[in-house]
Amino acid sequence: MTGALKKITAAFAALTLLLSSPLLAAAQRRRPVALLITGGTVVTMDKDRRVIEDGAVAVERGRIVAVGKRADILRSYAARETIDARGRAVIPGLINGHTHIPMTLFRGIADDLDLNEWLTKYIFPAEGKNVTEAFVRVGTQLGLAEMIRGGTTTYCDMYYFEDAIADETARAGVRGLLGETVIDFPVADNKTWPDAMRYAENFVRKWKGHALITAAIAPHAPYTVSEAHLREVRSFSDRTGAPIVTHVAETRKEVEDITRDHGASPVEYLARIGFLSLRTVAAHTVHLTDNEIKLLRQYHVGSVHNPESNMKLASGVAPVPQMMREGVLLGLGTDGAASNNDLSMWEAMDAAAKLHKLSSNDPKVVTAEEAFAMATINGARALHMDADIGSLEAGKRADIVVVDLDALHQTPRYNIYSHLVYATKASDVRTVVIEGRVVMRDRRLLTLNEALIKQKARALRERVTRSLSTAEARP
Amino acid sequence: MTGALKKITAAFAALTLLLSSPLLAAAQRRRPVALLITGGTVVTMDKDRRVIEDGAVAVERGRIVAVGKRADILRSYAARETIDARGRAVIPGLINGHTHIPMTLFRGIADDLDLNEWLTKYIFPAEGKNVTEAFVRVGTQLGLAEMIRGGTTTYCDMYYFEDAIADETARAGVRGLLGETVIDFPVADNKTWPDAMRYAENFVRKWKGHALITAAIAPHAPYTVSEAHLREVRSFSDRTGAPIVTHVAETRKEVEDITRDHGASPVEYLARIGFLSLRTVAAHTVHLTDNEIKLLRQYHVGSVHNPESNMKLASGVAPVPQMMREGVLLGLGTDGAASNNDLSMWEAMDAAAKLHKLSSNDPKVVTAEEAFAMATINGARALHMDADIGSLEAGKRADIVVVDLDALHQTPRYNIYSHLVYATKASDVRTVVIEGRVVMRDRRLLTLNEALIKQKARALRERVTRSLSTAEARP
Repeated sequence: MTGALKKITAAFAALTLLLSSPLLAAAQRRRPVALLITGGTVVTMDKDRRVIEDGAVAVERGRIVAVGKRADILRSYAARETIDARGRAVIPGLINGHTHIPMTLFRGIADDLDLNEWLTKYIFPAEGKNVTEAFVRVGTQLGLAEMIRGGTTTYCDMYYFEDAIADETARAGVRGLLGETVIDFPVADNKTWPDAMRYAENFVRKWKGHALITAAIAPHAPYTVSEAHLREVRSFSDRTGAPIVTHVAETRKEVEDITRDHGASPVEYLARIGFLSLRTVAAHTVHLTDNEIKLLRQYHVGSVHNPESNMKLASGVAPVPQMMREGVLLGLGTDGAASNNDLSMWEAMDAAAKLHKLSSNDPKVVTAEEAFAMATINGARALHMDADIGSLEAGKRADIVVVDLDALHQTPRYNIYSHLVYATKASDVRTVVIEGRVVMRDRRLLTLNEALIKQKARALRERVTRSLSTAEARP
Repeated sequence: MTGALKKITAAFAALTLLLSSPLLAAAQRRRPVALLITGGTVVTMDKDRRVIEDGAVAVERGRIVAVGKRADILRSYAARETIDARGRAVIPGLINGHTHIPMTLFRGIADDLDLNEWLTKYIFPAEGKNVTEAFVRVGTQLGLAEMIRGGTTTYCDMYYFEDAIADETARAGVRGLLGETVIDFPVADNKTWPDAMRYAENFVRKWKGHALITAAIAPHAPYTVSEAHLREVRSFSDRTGAPIVTHVAETRKEVEDITRDHGASPVEYLARIGFLSLRTVAAHTVHLTDNEIKLLRQYHVGSVHNPESNMKLASGVAPVPQMMREGVLLGLGTDGAASNNDLSMWEAMDAAAKLHKLSSNDPKVVTAEEAFAMATINGARALHMDADIGSLEAGKRADIVVVDLDALHQTPRYNIYSHLVYATKASDVRTVVIEGRVVMRDRRLLTLNEALIKQKARALRERVTRSLSTAEARP
């Protein structure tokens, strides 16, 4: 009893001391925030490209409120939740500038084929027979789960039933610039142009002001959408403020066709008809003249490079070093999983850095830091979202990724950018925060049911396989 | 007591029943083996390229004794240990045809530089100041651990202190074709040519007949080893039976220099001086004339393609589709971690398949299956080891890898080769068997202490960094 009494007295004394201590006084003055990520190497990608060792990031109401040295941040902020990032990298969430997310369900359905054969014998039939809203939802969940696991926090999409994609994306807590595809022939969700434009109108109106979703319109490409319709899309964008997402100059054939039909190469043609604006995001831009690179810059068009897809489909090599020199807003994407075959931005960065060294015959172009910028701050610029995302800076949305740095394949470490681009894999991503919400913690997905998604994806795979074998059996 | 007695009686009865059962009779007839890997998709890479669903592999005394359907194998063999591979792929261990394993310790030390600047300002000084036998041992352990994690079971190496590398490799239970570097200037382990040749002689003699280690001699390259010395190396190989590992035609500059000095391009020069044989393994072979491709074929030289290193250092594109058409023995490698920056054969396969589609402007070349063959059976042929490894066939060494197929980035699955090459990562490798010994089980390394290796690697990193900054501070 005496022992217990002594303990209580001692505890009371300690409490009194604590309550009167300068430490607590400081703690009481500290601003309360929702989340602190502390320790680790904070790679800000801010204008000074600060890399803060033993840094910290403070988050409140979905926004970053402070970035700095851990000691300084801890003096000023007290958090309801803390993520310990010691020994890890803390980076801006990666931005996948171009994909077709439900095509994860067609991952590996057909490879090593001519683009035309691939599209007409596999992709189009598979899409025609399988793409429903329910299918799109499962494919979106699958892609979202894969992207979160890989540290991608924002993606730019174009597909059908994009409203369902937006719904799934918002539920999973992921940020999306999501473009409803409009095209001059009947597709899965809309059978006529007016139907598609009405869908886009409702889609854009519905998501206006959403914290995570930016609804966009996505005319498929200049060779699949008529000039009149492209002009209509531009008017739609001006009237609604919706961004325009499209494919431009992906293949030599496209350039030849556009040149034959319109007497100008794709970007020149789009500029001439008044299609380009600072709300345009153009995927691929592989085959460009010097003048077209200048036009992209002049119109503030965002350009998204997809090195792995361009390689796998033998599309060609985008003039990335030249676009960088000319100041084109240049992001990075994976393209759909049917032509990559994954959604890893780590592999996209690695491929971008290596490909342009080879094709320029210059190992100094597209440095690791430049490749990392393409997937973060410059990717944000290409999507016209850099006011909100792309770097770790006070005032920006809290899209933050904690990455392990101690895997064997990352050991030892000399330079953080080199390690992120050339050595780090999607499997090294540990924790993912989007809009201040933890969507993956210690590699466990918190907003998606991984086992259920896999089960649904496998079931749909059976349906897709049957639909293709049926198609082949027919004359 | 009565209860206990009843239990004993029941157990005795059950035992009697079991001993007389047809099941046990069958089991008694089954041949006992050390290991069975059962279930899963067995990708044999045999001459019929059999892919066996719900297959199994039986292993005894380090060799594969049977490959077939699970039901058939279970009828004939009873194992002391069984690995359940249901839902997984069972593949031949991957073969990394070219690396410099201790250079893992220089991973990311310098990137995005001209080859010359990279070598003379960073790699050579870093090597000169740091490479000791102890350093090589740690780097080897680090590389071995990374390779096992990635499903690589055999690698071809060239570096200094190769005897220490062999020692570490044998201890870790990994298979190696290991070449002691000989070169016309003083290096870390040997300061003169006679010293180097004596080292090679002892090295080759010491490891003769070892189950895992094939000791080789590795003249660095035709531009760093004189004609007389290359002839001496060939005689050494003829006399000892040791393979020869070397770099050939990696860069344009090499071709220019060799042509200037010897009046022939590298492979022609090596053929002329009688250097080439069916014991030669030539890494890179990037810049080749049609005649040189024919010479490689004619002399049965193994050629090892390193797509990622060739891209990152802007060396050029090896004529892989043409070499394949001409029947050159063609394997795949990562090159050293300082120029890649990892040892993942999965990324090497993916890069090889994509790069040649792009550079050939033909998405049909280097299919997923062909890329996978380069890392397995054709890689074995390139190392002149295909009698022993490269496929899952009775009689071959039991180098077997079990790969998970159910990660998100692998979901769904349509085609096994596509999935292995375009979607699977090193992180999907689950269990690794080399020479019948389990060296990684369920992602846990059994022959290497991962935590200790990382700790030692980090300590050496500090030393390397200090040595470089000292070098820079000096005039």
